[in-house]
Amino acid sequence: MATQHIGIGMAGFGTVGTGVWETLERNGQLISNRAKGAFSLSIKKAAVRDINKKRIENAPSELFTTDWQEVVNHPEVDIVVELIGGTDTAFDIVAAALKLKKPVVTGNKALLAERGKELFALSRDYDTPIHFEAAVAGGIPVIKAVQDSYVGNRIETMSGIINGTSNYILERMTTAGLDYQTALKEAQDLGYAEADPALDVNGWDAAHKAILLATLAYGFTVPPEEVYVRGIERVRTIDIDFATKLGYAVKLLSVIRVHANGSVEIRTQPSFIPQSHILSSVNGVFNAVAVRGDASGEALFYGRGAGKEPTASSAVGDLVEAAYTFVHAAGHRGFLPYAENGKVLPIDQTETAYYVRFEVEDRPGVIAEIANILANDGIGISGTQSPVDPEHPDKDFCDMVFLLHTCPFGKLRETLKKCEALDCSTAEPVVFRIEKLATD
Amino acid sequence: MATQHIGIGMAGFGTVGTGVWETLERNGQLISNRAKGAFSLSIKKAAVRDINKKRIENAPSELFTTDWQEVVNHPEVDIVVELIGGTDTAFDIVAAALKLKKPVVTGNKALLAERGKELFALSRDYDTPIHFEAAVAGGIPVIKAVQDSYVGNRIETMSGIINGTSNYILERMTTAGLDYQTALKEAQDLGYAEADPALDVNGWDAAHKAILLATLAYGFTVPPEEVYVRGIERVRTIDIDFATKLGYAVKLLSVIRVHANGSVEIRTQPSFIPQSHILSSVNGVFNAVAVRGDASGEALFYGRGAGKEPTASSAVGDLVEAAYTFVHAAGHRGFLPYAENGKVLPIDQTETAYYVRFEVEDRPGVIAEIANILANDGIGISGTQSPVDPEHPDKDFCDMVFLLHTCPFGKLRETLKKCEALDCSTAEPVVFRIEKLATD
Ligand SMILES: NC(=O)c1ccc[n+]([C@@H]2O[C@H](COP(=O)([O-])OP(=O)(O)OC[C@H]3O[C@@H](n4cnc5c(N)ncnc54)[C@H](OP(=O)(O)O)[C@@H]3O)[C@@H](O)[C@H]2O)c1
Ligand SMILES: NC(=O)c1ccc[n+]([C@@H]2O[C@H](COP(=O)([O-])OP(=O)(O)OC[C@H]3O[C@@H](n4cnc5c(N)ncnc54)[C@H](OP(=O)(O)O)[C@@H]3O)[C@@H](O)[C@H]2O)c1
Repeated sequence: MATQHIGIGMAGFGTVGTGVWETLERNGQLISNRAKGAFSLSIKKAAVRDINKKRIENAPSELFTTDWQEVVNHPEVDIVVELIGGTDTAFDIVAAALKLKKPVVTGNKALLAERGKELFALSRDYDTPIHFEAAVAGGIPVIKAVQDSYVGNRIETMSGIINGTSNYILERMTTAGLDYQTALKEAQDLGYAEADPALDVNGWDAAHKAILLATLAYGFTVPPEEVYVRGIERVRTIDIDFATKLGYAVKLLSVIRVHANGSVEIRTQPSFIPQSHILSSVNGVFNAVAVRGDASGEALFYGRGAGKEPTASSAVGDLVEAAYTFVHAAGHRGFLPYAENGKVLPIDQTETAYYVRFEVEDRPGVIAEIANILANDGIGISGTQSPVDPEHPDKDFCDMVFLLHTCPFGKLRETLKKCEALDCSTAEPVVFRIEKLATD
Repeated sequence: MATQHIGIGMAGFGTVGTGVWETLERNGQLISNRAKGAFSLSIKKAAVRDINKKRIENAPSELFTTDWQEVVNHPEVDIVVELIGGTDTAFDIVAAALKLKKPVVTGNKALLAERGKELFALSRDYDTPIHFEAAVAGGIPVIKAVQDSYVGNRIETMSGIINGTSNYILERMTTAGLDYQTALKEAQDLGYAEADPALDVNGWDAAHKAILLATLAYGFTVPPEEVYVRGIERVRTIDIDFATKLGYAVKLLSVIRVHANGSVEIRTQPSFIPQSHILSSVNGVFNAVAVRGDASGEALFYGRGAGKEPTASSAVGDLVEAAYTFVHAAGHRGFLPYAENGKVLPIDQTETAYYVRFEVEDRPGVIAEIANILANDGIGISGTQSPVDPEHPDKDFCDMVFLLHTCPFGKLRETLKKCEALDCSTAEPVVFRIEKLATD
């Protein structure tokens, strides 16, 4: 069979886009060999915002345009790669490509998590796939694993550390004793965090990825507003010290789990996980996702969760997948929702043990006041302490931490509202989940 | 599009074969939904050795035959799953299926490692794929990761713990202080080791898997006789104690690494790996493969390396892949060799540091004799010790261990021959690699 030349249109040529270009330059021949000479890939057009920005040397200036329509409509463009980010223009680009039956490769978790319903509907109507390995966990091929390798499995649980910036900050707070602000600044200085790190530290970047994993595993587009998300902004070194002493690591953990009634628990929040669990050794900007299927048993996928090259690696893998299908007119190999009655489990029905830190006025009797409320509501206490906080020696409030027995989160929430309403309370209590993460 | 019914022929219906049947029974509808209703899968015929053996209840007796040709030639069989093991009949089955243009799914690492050259040639000639996710690391989808997700990467290294039985034995020797024979017996009693555990403990099961990983990554069929393999039969608790004290874990490690001249290092042998490296926490019957690509960076795939269900999970994933291609007449999506000049690096040219244990007569002067030979040959010593061996308090030989600086293995081998020729030497020295396993 003669080699078919496949044209790629890039919408976005920033960090990841440049990585895709470089990877195809460096390994294009190898890719073609591996594809048995069925096709070769070349980038025909790229949309950017600033046409005057200096780009990598060997990319010719004719490649670039500021008009994404030129990319999508270009007659030699067969596959469109969306790497601009955001949920507006990116939506228009992906929608336009699908309507032209041009397969899409994207790294945009926000777009698919927020507007996946509309886009997958277009994907179905126009029988054209959207591939999104690059959107979850950078260079780790967990999307393909869940979608293809584990197609024969009911997925029971997935637990992921899927935001490298948060993970880096928590690790530095743990190993170097830095406070949150210092660790965040360090992450920014090292280029790990975005200039505006909001989505990283408020948990939403991880939550978007968790939404995509759940969508894949359970076949329905998960409404983001039904997903519980807390970031790491209120984590303090006293929390981490407490966890460490008890044999836990503090991680921003995304948990996805199907329940007996078929509804799906999906949440992202700071969690205590046992130091003996392999997820606790995922440090720095690395990501990991533990996946448990009814046949596969427990597996873990670990690697670089972001960055130019790892993310480009995933985008190029998807490009090759799209190219195979394109060359052979081989139908739709991408994901499509199939579960019409998919449901998110209300967060109030989820159950774990908890670590709760109360910030209260520093005066006698406050332990008793809180303990009374917990006792009256039947929430068991397995430990309590009022640790000295070296970060704030002169503050006029104190911290009270409680380890609480397993109960529904809804019940805990009601009780915590009462505690917060106490006169002595100076802030909303901070809640960490204590995760069991049993391995088989 | 109407749902197409795809018939599967099973050659072998033992542990894994039964798992494939059960998985399709349990999750067949889910698989069909995920495949957008493009096809449904059903098993039409199964070959076994003993027609009278009791099989799982809901498999009808008409399903079975002792004649594999009946399976392969069956008019309703579109895809053939080979799960009988061995390299003779299994070869005939796979070859016959390919010649009928029926895609093959197999879990047989011995077959592909020993006779892959012939089979991939048939795969090419008949334009029909062989899928073999189940052959490497049970339920861990590392084959698809390397073949598809990382298609855009030059693979730099892969390091794997890919034999669960050996890993279990080494772990028990480490954590429970068992000697090799006791740990092996325990593994057999628990059903982890085969009745004849030869391929597990002599390293060849892992080596077959390493050959397949190298074949995928570098595109040439690796001649098994060019691959260096040592098992765990001579590992003793004193070796493990020594390693532990120095901050290492002892693992049967398979290492694959491409060198600047393009030739590929492939070896399987007992190794010291730093306790700080994530591979050192792979315990029990779990497997893990660390893969480093030039774009992806370092990644790790971890999970159940064998067993009915995990291996069936991989076989079913491959079945779905084969079915997609079959339904859409979408050409060859399997692996084919592409590197005509692929070369294995001669083991003598590989370099690491080493731990060597000599078994010598228990008399004065032996340390000096060995140290002199090492010194004369310019092999640096970073430590030596003559540990007391609690397993053999009354023996008439003693153990001398040396930690040796990095040098080519060929050089070490020459020197060790001289040491072995000394009068005081009572056995061939035991060599462990000390692996660096740098993470990025
Ligand atoms: N960076 C990572 O490590 C990473 C990892 C995983 C996923 N992702 C995802 O990949 C996507 C791209 O990330 P990135 O880091 O590569 O972003 P980036 O460096 O900011 O690049 C964005 C690119 O899009 C262009 N662009 C923005 N708005 C445009 C518009 N309206 N019309 C035309 N071009 C426009 C920019 O043009 P200029 O070059 O002229 O500014 C730039 O080339 C995002 O969805 C992100 O979430 C990134
Ligand atoms: N078990 C694992 O965990 C695992 C993991 C990864 C890969 N694998 C690989 O998967 C393959 C199968 O392993 P397994 O554990 O399922 O083996 P198994 O339990 O021994 O099953 C072998 C099956 O093949 C049948 N068979 C053997 N010779 C035959 C012949 N000449 N004609 C027809 N049928 C024949 C046997 O028939 P009877 O039932 O009548 O004896 C049995 O059903 C092997 O290549 C193995 O290396 C196994």
